[in-house]
Amino acid sequence: MSAVVLNGKLVADQIHAETRERISLLSANGVVPGLVFVRVGEDPASRAYVEMKEKKAKELGISSRTIVLKNSTSERDLISLLATLNEDASVHGILVQAPLPRHICEQRVFASVDPSKDVDGFHPENMGKLLLGDACGFRPCTPAGIVELLVRCGVPIQGADVVILGRGNIVGKPLAAMLCQKSKEADATVTLVHSRSRGVPEHCRRADILVAAMGQAEFVRADMVRPGATVVDVGVNRVEDQSCPRGYRLVGDVCQEEVRTVAGAITPNPGGVGPMTIAMLMANTIKAAENSVASGRL
Amino acid sequence: MSAVVLNGKLVADQIHAETRERISLLSANGVVPGLVFVRVGEDPASRAYVEMKEKKAKELGISSRTIVLKNSTSERDLISLLATLNEDASVHGILVQAPLPRHICEQRVFASVDPSKDVDGFHPENMGKLLLGDACGFRPCTPAGIVELLVRCGVPIQGADVVILGRGNIVGKPLAAMLCQKSKEADATVTLVHSRSRGVPEHCRRADILVAAMGQAEFVRADMVRPGATVVDVGVNRVEDQSCPRGYRLVGDVCQEEVRTVAGAITPNPGGVGPMTIAMLMANTIKAAENSVASGRL
Repeated sequence: MSAVVLNGKLVADQIHAETRERISLLSANGVVPGLVFVRVGEDPASRAYVEMKEKKAKELGISSRTIVLKNSTSERDLISLLATLNEDASVHGILVQAPLPRHICEQRVFASVDPSKDVDGFHPENMGKLLLGDACGFRPCTPAGIVELLVRCGVPIQGADVVILGRGNIVGKPLAAMLCQKSKEADATVTLVHSRSRGVPEHCRRADILVAAMGQAEFVRADMVRPGATVVDVGVNRVEDQSCPRGYRLVGDVCQEEVRTVAGAITPNPGGVGPMTIAMLMANTIKAAENSVASGRL
Repeated sequence: MSAVVLNGKLVADQIHAETRERISLLSANGVVPGLVFVRVGEDPASRAYVEMKEKKAKELGISSRTIVLKNSTSERDLISLLATLNEDASVHGILVQAPLPRHICEQRVFASVDPSKDVDGFHPENMGKLLLGDACGFRPCTPAGIVELLVRCGVPIQGADVVILGRGNIVGKPLAAMLCQKSKEADATVTLVHSRSRGVPEHCRRADILVAAMGQAEFVRADMVRPGATVVDVGVNRVEDQSCPRGYRLVGDVCQEEVRTVAGAITPNPGGVGPMTIAMLMANTIKAAENSVASGRL
């Protein structure tokens, strides 16, 4: 028996279709949602991510642009740019692409984005709302995409034992905060496992839903998965491979080939969580634009 | 064999002594830390809590006062009072005692306290910093008190399996956020268990540290505790008892008599987490005053 594949690409397209409808409604009110990407330096992966997101935004009819700053930009200059964007009523969403150069403190930068334009959901105020269970904030895109994928594919979350591998600020911790809430799309018993955890395989084996988000190539093997469990493969890792044109190939945190023989359902990688992340970014941008209409900020 | 008792009263006194020293240093700089309690209505438990905290503040040399508002006070009036206190440079800490009357939204009220004066740690920005692992925010007093008690009593937290019963915004969720961080006083593998969880006794039995914070009288029994585990009894519950002068007695979430025969260490109740909560409130107030000096707000 082979695991059901949770097709993130398909579900993302479904969300994009809903987003398009919301954009039409905004247009009817004379509002074009505006999204600005800020990128510092020339990290190739960051460039590729931003290009991918901007392309999708344009496709949907979101007015978007990318501001590229030199690698040597000071934290102060970056924050002062954000202050300008915060004031600009035509900008509904601001995304500062991580990672930033080492001389810039990411936390201070993320905290300098107006929380009402923080479509990445990394501002402490939005993180706090997440933990408090206050739905009016923005949810970080990757964990929100994971929840949305599970819900739309009919994977039961309420009462499930969820084990999350990896306690990053982008996926692990916010996902734990989301899934433990008292709500129809959460209500799970969440365990957050990390590099200092003991008995990792045992924790994995008791999971109804196992989320691998620690960034270790093919860490999750078949013997760590309970037969029938749902496995979410979040990480994207480079593995040297001279047989590939670039000299490396990309693999997830899950050994897909092995785990598919045991799991009940699995997200492919690529084509699972990645497209969902982008779909949630677009949905967050529309939410920001809708909120600005509702609050009369236009 | 009987469990070691983690004497919260004793450790709290130790923290108060340190707080006194910090207050002396502030005095030397001409600063008297100021703490304002806001209480709405005449809930007897709330009144008792605030009186207890104010008494301790005064004992330590904190300038403190309580503003009591009528039960019929509107949310708007309460928030406008908070705006005035936010502006008052002599006020370093503001505590709005929960629960508030039903017609007032607690979330909106807590979010109206200046985060730099939010000594209760309930503002979304401080909650978000907690989840992000940013130590510059304020930690909610009860979970901070639990961590402080475990650390000062030498209970190993790094790598430990911690199971928390109860996902409230005051204890369960912020404690989970604190204990999962990458830090010497955390680094635990945390599972948050609640009313919708399955297999609760099994979760409890695999805990190195079991925290009962769900508000159910004597819920944790001996057969739910692994021999040698540390048990933290947070809840305070009224149980009818006509043999008591008031017609009720107060008990914790742990059946102390039974669990003491199995656990390696246990917090008494009262005399465990309660005094630690007050100690952390005082420490937070001093931190707020120190920050105001450092930032030149005085």
